[in-house]
Amino acid sequence: MISFLQNNSMQPKLTSLQTRLFQAKAERKISFAELAEILGHEEVYVAAIFYGQAKPTEKDLARLSKALNIPMSHLTEAYGPQFYPDRGGLMENPPTDPLLYRLYEMIQVFGYPIKAVIHEKFGDGIMSAIDFSAKVDKEEHPNGDRVVLTLNGKFLPYKQF
Amino acid sequence: MISFLQNNSMQPKLTSLQTRLFQAKAERKISFAELAEILGHEEVYVAAIFYGQAKPTEKDLARLSKALNIPMSHLTEAYGPQFYPDRGGLMENPPTDPLLYRLYEMIQVFGYPIKAVIHEKFGDGIMSAIDFSAKVDKEEHPNGDRVVLTLNGKFLPYKQF
Amino acid sequence: MISFLQNNSMQPKLTSLQTRLFQAKAERKISFAELAEILGHEEVYVAAIFYGQAKPTEKDLARLSKALNIPMSHLTEAYGPQFYPDRGGLMENPPTDPLLYRLYEMIQVFGYPIKAVIHEKFGDGIMSAIDFSAKVDKEEHPNGDRVVLTLNGKFLPYKQF
Amino acid sequence: MISFLQNNSMQPKLTSLQTRLFQAKAERKISFAELAEILGHEEVYVAAIFYGQAKPTEKDLARLSKALNIPMSHLTEAYGPQFYPDRGGLMENPPTDPLLYRLYEMIQVFGYPIKAVIHEKFGDGIMSAIDFSAKVDKEEHPNGDRVVLTLNGKFLPYKQF
Amino acid sequence: MISFLQNNSMQPKLTSLQTRLFQAKAERKISFAELAEILGHEEVYVAAIFYGQAKPTEKDLARLSKALNIPMSHLTEAYGPQFYPDRGGLMENPPTDPLLYRLYEMIQVFGYPIKAVIHEKFGDGIMSAIDFSAKVDKEEHPNGDRVVLTLNGKFLPYKQF
Amino acid sequence: MISFLQNNSMQPKLTSLQTRLFQAKAERKISFAELAEILGHEEVYVAAIFYGQAKPTEKDLARLSKALNIPMSHLTEAYGPQFYPDRGGLMENPPTDPLLYRLYEMIQVFGYPIKAVIHEKFGDGIMSAIDFSAKVDKEEHPNGDRVVLTLNGKFLPYKQF
Amino acid sequence: MISFLQNNSMQPKLTSLQTRLFQAKAERKISFAELAEILGHEEVYVAAIFYGQAKPTEKDLARLSKALNIPMSHLTEAYGPQFYPDRGGLMENPPTDPLLYRLYEMIQVFGYPIKAVIHEKFGDGIMSAIDFSAKVDKEEHPNGDRVVLTLNGKFLPYKQF
Amino acid sequence: MISFLQNNSMQPKLTSLQTRLFQAKAERKISFAELAEILGHEEVYVAAIFYGQAKPTEKDLARLSKALNIPMSHLTEAYGPQFYPDRGGLMENPPTDPLLYRLYEMIQVFGYPIKAVIHEKFGDGIMSAIDFSAKVDKEEHPNGDRVVLTLNGKFLPYKQF
Amino acid sequence: MISFLQNNSMQPKLTSLQTRLFQAKAERKISFAELAEILGHEEVYVAAIFYGQAKPTEKDLARLSKALNIPMSHLTEAYGPQFYPDRGGLMENPPTDPLLYRLYEMIQVFGYPIKAVIHEKFGDGIMSAIDFSAKVDKEEHPNGDRVVLTLNGKFLPYKQF
Amino acid sequence: MISFLQNNSMQPKLTSLQTRLFQAKAERKISFAELAEILGHEEVYVAAIFYGQAKPTEKDLARLSKALNIPMSHLTEAYGPQFYPDRGGLMENPPTDPLLYRLYEMIQVFGYPIKAVIHEKFGDGIMSAIDFSAKVDKEEHPNGDRVVLTLNGKFLPYKQF
Repeated sequence: MISFLQNNSMQPKLTSLQTRLFQAKAERKISFAELAEILGHEEVYVAAIFYGQAKPTEKDLARLSKALNIPMSHLTEAYGPQFYPDRGGLMENPPTDPLLYRLYEMIQVFGYPIKAVIHEKFGDGIMSAIDFSAKVDKEEHPNGDRVVLTLNGKFLPYKQF
Repeated sequence: MISFLQNNSMQPKLTSLQTRLFQAKAERKISFAELAEILGHEEVYVAAIFYGQAKPTEKDLARLSKALNIPMSHLTEAYGPQFYPDRGGLMENPPTDPLLYRLYEMIQVFGYPIKAVIHEKFGDGIMSAIDFSAKVDKEEHPNGDRVVLTLNGKFLPYKQF
Repeated sequence: MISFLQNNSMQPKLTSLQTRLFQAKAERKISFAELAEILGHEEVYVAAIFYGQAKPTEKDLARLSKALNIPMSHLTEAYGPQFYPDRGGLMENPPTDPLLYRLYEMIQVFGYPIKAVIHEKFGDGIMSAIDFSAKVDKEEHPNGDRVVLTLNGKFLPYKQF
Repeated sequence: MISFLQNNSMQPKLTSLQTRLFQAKAERKISFAELAEILGHEEVYVAAIFYGQAKPTEKDLARLSKALNIPMSHLTEAYGPQFYPDRGGLMENPPTDPLLYRLYEMIQVFGYPIKAVIHEKFGDGIMSAIDFSAKVDKEEHPNGDRVVLTLNGKFLPYKQF
Repeated sequence: MISFLQNNSMQPKLTSLQTRLFQAKAERKISFAELAEILGHEEVYVAAIFYGQAKPTEKDLARLSKALNIPMSHLTEAYGPQFYPDRGGLMENPPTDPLLYRLYEMIQVFGYPIKAVIHEKFGDGIMSAIDFSAKVDKEEHPNGDRVVLTLNGKFLPYKQF
Repeated sequence: MISFLQNNSMQPKLTSLQTRLFQAKAERKISFAELAEILGHEEVYVAAIFYGQAKPTEKDLARLSKALNIPMSHLTEAYGPQFYPDRGGLMENPPTDPLLYRLYEMIQVFGYPIKAVIHEKFGDGIMSAIDFSAKVDKEEHPNGDRVVLTLNGKFLPYKQF
Repeated sequence: MISFLQNNSMQPKLTSLQTRLFQAKAERKISFAELAEILGHEEVYVAAIFYGQAKPTEKDLARLSKALNIPMSHLTEAYGPQFYPDRGGLMENPPTDPLLYRLYEMIQVFGYPIKAVIHEKFGDGIMSAIDFSAKVDKEEHPNGDRVVLTLNGKFLPYKQF
Repeated sequence: MISFLQNNSMQPKLTSLQTRLFQAKAERKISFAELAEILGHEEVYVAAIFYGQAKPTEKDLARLSKALNIPMSHLTEAYGPQFYPDRGGLMENPPTDPLLYRLYEMIQVFGYPIKAVIHEKFGDGIMSAIDFSAKVDKEEHPNGDRVVLTLNGKFLPYKQF
Repeated sequence: MISFLQNNSMQPKLTSLQTRLFQAKAERKISFAELAEILGHEEVYVAAIFYGQAKPTEKDLARLSKALNIPMSHLTEAYGPQFYPDRGGLMENPPTDPLLYRLYEMIQVFGYPIKAVIHEKFGDGIMSAIDFSAKVDKEEHPNGDRVVLTLNGKFLPYKQF
Repeated sequence: MISFLQNNSMQPKLTSLQTRLFQAKAERKISFAELAEILGHEEVYVAAIFYGQAKPTEKDLARLSKALNIPMSHLTEAYGPQFYPDRGGLMENPPTDPLLYRLYEMIQVFGYPIKAVIHEKFGDGIMSAIDFSAKVDKEEHPNGDRVVLTLNGKFLPYKQF
């Protein structure tokens, strides 16, 4: 059996169907990029479905079922109207994995500067993490390729009451 | 005296000169956007200098001195060769401010999906938080403007040894 | 088998009968709203029974037994006189799920202001979380529907002794 | 000098002007209810301004200046365009004060049930803590008056991307 | 099978014999009050034996064996000379269950006042939690019955050396 | 000047008037027992007033003013209608002082047994920490005097809704 | 089967062979004192081997094999050259068990005084916890026997470099 | 002025008189060993008085007054009947200083083995940290001197109730 | 079966194949030094592969397969393109094992001095933990052999933006 | 006045003399490298003296006095026989500064592999952090210079007792 996860500590945080999604993806050697094209989503969003951090639609399920050869009924049972992600529980705080830690460190070091600039540009409010998208691009560069992570969230002004 | 900070808990984390930078900026009503143009940096970077999270160069200091009318000698004394930022101590973990928390939540919810996509696109390594830049753009939108936060970091592959 | 839970981390916090309640509800596609009507409780209270945060009465059990087709004897054995909820252990602190975090943030940001107003209106005491009810209403609105969460608790003045 | 705060541990979390607001309110024996009427806000919102958790508008400041007899220039200097609240830092986690703890406990015990009901009524998303209002009402009752805390937040559906 | 525990999180903290004690008690519908009379202990002490927080004597075991119909050999094997309670691991800190939290809050709010009074009455020392007893009484009252928790510990003066 | 406090770490948690109460008490060598008689309260309650954990009434203040020779106006200014205790912040968690720790340990070891007995005797609810009193008695004993701490709280049944 | 452990929470921290050692010791009613004599070690050291906190030598294993009637091959397989204790993971911090907590409290209260005396007697360095021994003696006393815990560690001066 | 403390972080944890004790000791170059002889205590106990972890008697104060040339009235005012140590707050948990950490590690690694041996030798109870003494001896050794720390505490059996 | 791990708490952090690697190494009595020579890596790197902290290449797998007699297909399935280490989760923070704690303490005590020297020698930046190698050498010495741990990381200057 | 520190949060952790050392070094533009040569120590050790993490000898003080033009009496008063560093309190855990975090991450990721290799090469024991030295070297490299951090600690075998 293919080892589809990076270590055992992730296992109890995934449902058996999420485990099956990862396994099917590994066996069929389909990339998130390919699935993103099939589902019409960003790669990050597809990965979020796999990790149980986003709720797939009926249409997403139909396409996943076909791409990964998992019976539709198994998917609709698991991701039916009773399913709502319980988000945010995958990561330690602060994260111990170096890749995740670097993302966290960007906020830790540049968080207040970013807050100051958002307030100056938009006023008193926040950048939504719900009406939100994220994408990862590869910027090729002779001194080493660069990861460009674009986070796009609606500005929500504080309501006065 | 102008209240240049958002609350008192930030005060002990800033040096007296950093306090003076914020105050001068508030009194002269200069925005980070204007300073960014004067210094030739991103707004986030200028704010990072103000918050003591980045080390200004001699040239940065000369331009700040002129823009904020602070004697150059005061700046060079404070930011001389003996000064190196002790970064990352401004933020609680997890952050309590809602704007900062949303940035943190983006990592908490989408961190593993982002990690999975970076690995697929780049291989085994990380996105640098050192050889790194951040910028905040305003995307106008009829349903509400959007904050676009672009994080750009060099991919660093793990070295085998 | 229907996946009735949002992820695996909730599983060890529920008894096998609570798991069965969720499953039966999902299979029979009965909503909390329908169960609330059948049991004569608020939806939040019914959900609290499912999550083991409230103790159902004999009458509640009879109605649940009928609505979900679970033998009454199974329910009375599990929720008999020896059963008392061990409340409050479901949530991380602070919660990682964004919906739960927002509820927490409301207290974090507005807690002291609410305390000041309660003291001004009622005097020295607290709002009970025991002699208490909660309900969720949907307020339709052209700019987006609103969640109205009404928390109603008896004021308990501090006793002098 | 009037002791306007509940203990010393709050002091370093307030700016000197916020301290002055509390003091003026105590000396003039003006209630949050009266100020709420003067400013046209909910009492909780007025208290949030006092605690530095909300940003007062120019109009709010003019009315506060008059009601509390604080020179307008002092207020506009402190709450000018450079001021943005750094929210959420007042409370310990979990809160130690019993009134605040009860609010926290309501989320701790009933958080998942509320989440389940919101999802059933609204779908996959959150209740906003930004496009949000809170009010405290007194419900008189022969067995003891009741605190009715109404939290009203826009439902924000998760964006697919 | 009777569900004798309040939730699953307690399960791994009990040995299989402690589980069996709870189950036998539930099936035979024997109260702690009845067991207290049979064993000649306070109810709290009997419950402490069930939760593995006190070590039963040979005599206690003989009476438990008879009252709960568990073979004496099973009890003496489990609670033989090699058994010593590993106390204090049942509770989260601070406790999340509201009943337990209130006990904790009494110490949190009134701990220093109690310390001041003990010192005034007894001198420099502590109230023992080892040479100690606890009992719960019900005080009937027209406005609602009252729980009277009496904690009785030997005063231990600090030894000078 | 008399050192009225046990160490410096308590200082920032008390207001200047609370400090003055302790000092006046030490200088006049009045015990909490004497003040309790003068004020008509339990000693623990009087100590709670000194530590800012209870709100004194007008009558309490008049008696304190006379007993400690502090001008009434100073007391009424500090403990006027704007004052409400911010309770529970004095103690570390878990407490480091051995006397306080023993109180905490009693809950940690015997908390679940006490919960089980309260439920058996009263049903589903809690022991109030608000409608509550505490007293410390000295039980003389040839093997060493005993501290008897009596905690008396109203039983509050969970409300069904 | 004999219950050789104090509760279930210790179980996952022991290997199956360590479990077997405890069981064999309980069944054969051999004390640590007897094993200490057989192995030529202090009792504390023998117990440390049982808890996986010390690495037994070939000779220790041969004697344990004989004393506890466990085949030598089972012991040498488990404690072969590939085995090195992963020390220190048994205890919560701070420990919840009262016996362990008292040991911890001795350090918490008297740690700085002990440090001051060691520095005065030995200079700048530490007391080794590696080149170290511990023993427990019983000092009989008419007012109650006393535990004498002797900790003996090499003084290691800080190296200048 | 002599720097009598090891760093500034200790300063706020000591009263001004404790600071004066350390200073006088440093200026007069009196060792804890000499003071121990003068006061008739162990060195550790004298150091505990200096660190505010033990309450000096009238006689201790008279001898300290003479040895350190501090007016008796200053000492009796500070350590009068109103003074009771608030113990245990000096140390971080776990301690960061290597000398203190080694003491802590001894408990962390050998705590359960010590508990097992105490139970075997004494039965179900604890080693008192109140009816307790500690001393530090220097054992000269050709391979390096050894610190012998002897902890002596009364065994307190658990009371049955 | 050989016990290849130091205790049970490591088990859930390893995949079943990593467990198998340790077991095969123990059974065949191959050292990390020998494997390092076979694989052409530092011993630390080989151990990092075993602990799931480094990603082996195809060539590494082929050599491991041969050296440990594990079918290549098992290894390539587990360490295929879908495998990326989830690093850093093995260690408690701070570590409880004394060997690991000493490494941590070196950073805790000498971290700021090292930072100061790196800044002086290299400027504003960090020492990479990604473009990084570690090796352990044995330096023989008459007073006791020494461990020489050489950490070698690329200096990464902070990018200005 | 020269700003000799990296931010304000370090200030309360240093004594006034340590502050003066940093200031004198900055004003005279002497590097740690130069001081290291003058004092005959590694640069890291000199920086450790500045940060209060190492105790300077009489000879170190004489040389520092001369190099930094600080009167010897000031130094000997501060670093006299009564001074012993209270080590390890400078760093947050985990550290927030990226340079310090990378050092920490090296242990977090490679700690267990390093432990495994040390055990294999040396047996059961630790690498001393007391009989220890650290040095930082610059390794020039066309792709970017490298930081070589050499940690050298005596191997201390666990003593059997």
